[in-house]
Amino acid sequence: MIKKKFGLAVKKYREQLGLSQEKFALSISMDRTYYASVESGKRNISLQNIEKIANGLNISLSQLFETIDTIL
Amino acid sequence: MIKKKFGLAVKKYREQLGLSQEKFALSISMDRTYYASVESGKRNISLQNIEKIANGLNISLSQLFETIDTIL
Repeated sequence: MIKKKFGLAVKKYREQLGLSQEKFALSISMDRTYYASVESGKRNISLQNIEKIANGLNISLSQLFETIDTIL
Repeated sequence: MIKKKFGLAVKKYREQLGLSQEKFALSISMDRTYYASVESGKRNISLQNIEKIANGLNISLSQLFETIDTIL
């Protein structure tokens, strides 16, 4: 469940930036297909990749996880 | 750096529970040596293990990452 919630939260912030998955993945030097699998909730992502995504979204880790905590 | 900060934050909360690394790792069915390497900042821990630790510490993910965000 946490993987799904993580993907939904990240997608929300990425869409707020008005970027496609491809453009956002490129902006943080992350493989596009890997990033797509993170958003679709299929990836048990690592701490360093979580930080990389949060940095790319210009949000703090606590802000990202606050959003995740609110997703039912 | 994020691995080190994660380890320090988790250690702080575990010590507040008054549990040894061994007792805490046992309480969340996590391998003791793996858990020790997480606390010493050597592990690029996965999202599901992060959730497992936060649940074991009885804190939310956002609370855990708020603490991490404050560690310089």
